[in-house]
Amino acid sequence: MKSLEAYQSSINEALVSRMQSSEFAEPSGLYEPCKYILQNGGKRVRASLVLLASKMFSGEYKQAMPVALAFETFHNFTLIHDDIMDKADLRRGKPTVHTKWDENTAILSGDAVMIIAYRFFEESGIFVPQLFKLLNKTALEVCEGQQYDVDLENAGLSDTIVSESMYLKMIELKTSVLLAACLKAGAIVGGASADDAEKMYEIGRLIGIAFQLQDDVLDTYGNVQTFGKKIGGDIRVNKKTFLLIQALQTLKGAERQKLIDLLSAKTNNETEKFNAVVALYNSADVKEKTIARISHYFQQAQSILDSIQLADTQKVELNTFMKELLVRKY
Amino acid sequence: MKSLEAYQSSINEALVSRMQSSEFAEPSGLYEPCKYILQNGGKRVRASLVLLASKMFSGEYKQAMPVALAFETFHNFTLIHDDIMDKADLRRGKPTVHTKWDENTAILSGDAVMIIAYRFFEESGIFVPQLFKLLNKTALEVCEGQQYDVDLENAGLSDTIVSESMYLKMIELKTSVLLAACLKAGAIVGGASADDAEKMYEIGRLIGIAFQLQDDVLDTYGNVQTFGKKIGGDIRVNKKTFLLIQALQTLKGAERQKLIDLLSAKTNNETEKFNAVVALYNSADVKEKTIARISHYFQQAQSILDSIQLADTQKVELNTFMKELLVRKY
Repeated sequence: MKSLEAYQSSINEALVSRMQSSEFAEPSGLYEPCKYILQNGGKRVRASLVLLASKMFSGEYKQAMPVALAFETFHNFTLIHDDIMDKADLRRGKPTVHTKWDENTAILSGDAVMIIAYRFFEESGIFVPQLFKLLNKTALEVCEGQQYDVDLENAGLSDTIVSESMYLKMIELKTSVLLAACLKAGAIVGGASADDAEKMYEIGRLIGIAFQLQDDVLDTYGNVQTFGKKIGGDIRVNKKTFLLIQALQTLKGAERQKLIDLLSAKTNNETEKFNAVVALYNSADVKEKTIARISHYFQQAQSILDSIQLADTQKVELNTFMKELLVRKY
Repeated sequence: MKSLEAYQSSINEALVSRMQSSEFAEPSGLYEPCKYILQNGGKRVRASLVLLASKMFSGEYKQAMPVALAFETFHNFTLIHDDIMDKADLRRGKPTVHTKWDENTAILSGDAVMIIAYRFFEESGIFVPQLFKLLNKTALEVCEGQQYDVDLENAGLSDTIVSESMYLKMIELKTSVLLAACLKAGAIVGGASADDAEKMYEIGRLIGIAFQLQDDVLDTYGNVQTFGKKIGGDIRVNKKTFLLIQALQTLKGAERQKLIDLLSAKTNNETEKFNAVVALYNSADVKEKTIARISHYFQQAQSILDSIQLADTQKVELNTFMKELLVRKY
């Protein structure tokens, strides 16, 4: 995201400098893994959104840095623990914490990273009580989203929880509320009114959901060059994506049964399976339906942004960011 | 602890009622394990200390209940994750969370319990910023203590970190700072001056260390009837207790070597090993030295309590609690 790149180096610099403080020195067995994950790059989307939102309302972003670091750090805590739960070996091309050290180290240093996130919030002055509540609410929702993801994964294809509404709830909690909270927190620190801060939350929530749906589309219909990862991964592992749920909801009779059979049977020919599933997806128009939904969320977000009483020049960064998200290639 | 029993039922009642709120209902896969650990009894020492301290300064304890629940909940978060790390099957006679559910559930619901602890703090009104800082500091120290415990466990008997000062640092961070923070937080909510709140912290820190040293003595020299658990467990698993570290520090030459050999060799005769180790402990006077140290910490705590400018009637509960700790039978 070009619009966010401007913030990345100041975020990385601030984070490295903050973590070098003597308060995070000993025991090194605890703090080395914390520094490893926090300094292992990443796009810093969450911190950037805090800074962007703060600048949008105040013209300045430096005062929001502690809050930006807090949200970025909270996000990294979820990565450490999620990677244990997913048994993931690599993260951003490097060994995950539990792979480089061990699982106990990853549990404990993950806990420490969460507490460090809270600690960074202490530096947000008069905003502490308000931001503290926002982080608590969001943090618990992210845990709820993670649990719904597990519930969906464990559910049979015909279980009632495998529904569009449950899927949307899951991605909202697992991904969107954190982006929403970042925009809201930045707005608060930037001096936005309560009403505008709430609008920023809603924009973040909507574009977070749209982004996730877009990921689902790209995983099946994307171009490997522009998407940047292998196509078809979701179908290969029978992931309950928005596309699959749409198809299960739309298809009837023999077609629906064929889809269920394709997902239930073991296959040695992944290409054949992929093509057969896509044919059924096409028959149910899931690509078009999902893209229409994405546009719907984007338009809602856009119209909320339009309603914020600021000069267009102040909104240009957020506008650019949203447009960049929307033009990811299908 | 008789002095704390008075608080137990109101704590349990408040905790059950708080967890029944609709905010902790769904997904049940996340919140059932949280409720299971939070409602699985325990002596509620930490919550009781918050209430006792608040009552000491204000005559009332009800206003401190949210803070008491927050500290008790934080303690339960550490239990869930520690039990995974220790591969412990039972806690308070019931299956641990990762045994009753699975490890992923225990990681995630442990995270949620920590966030719930922070959430309970929101209800402490004007004290939020001050208590928030206290919890952050304490929480990170508890993680540090856990890491030092791991470091000590993994160290060889001749490693420089196997020292009295490291052991004291470890138990201070792992156990005492939380008790200290409970007394301080209760004092703050009870309207104590900053100076008195700090004195309460120091009392908690000292009696926490003394309590842990007493546990070490009782595990080797205790009476199974009064101690309530099997004697000799620490020696059987070669735990690096204060007694062992004292003995390693005091004994010289052949005796020191004999102790190291006893801890290094596998044995089929645990009683013989226990008796041989105790003989060496006795030769180094470790029981007397440790009891002298315990008395020293208690006297320090007592003299700080004496220096707090309150009527004796207001101090009677904390005094009784401290005396109960001191008379545990060796």
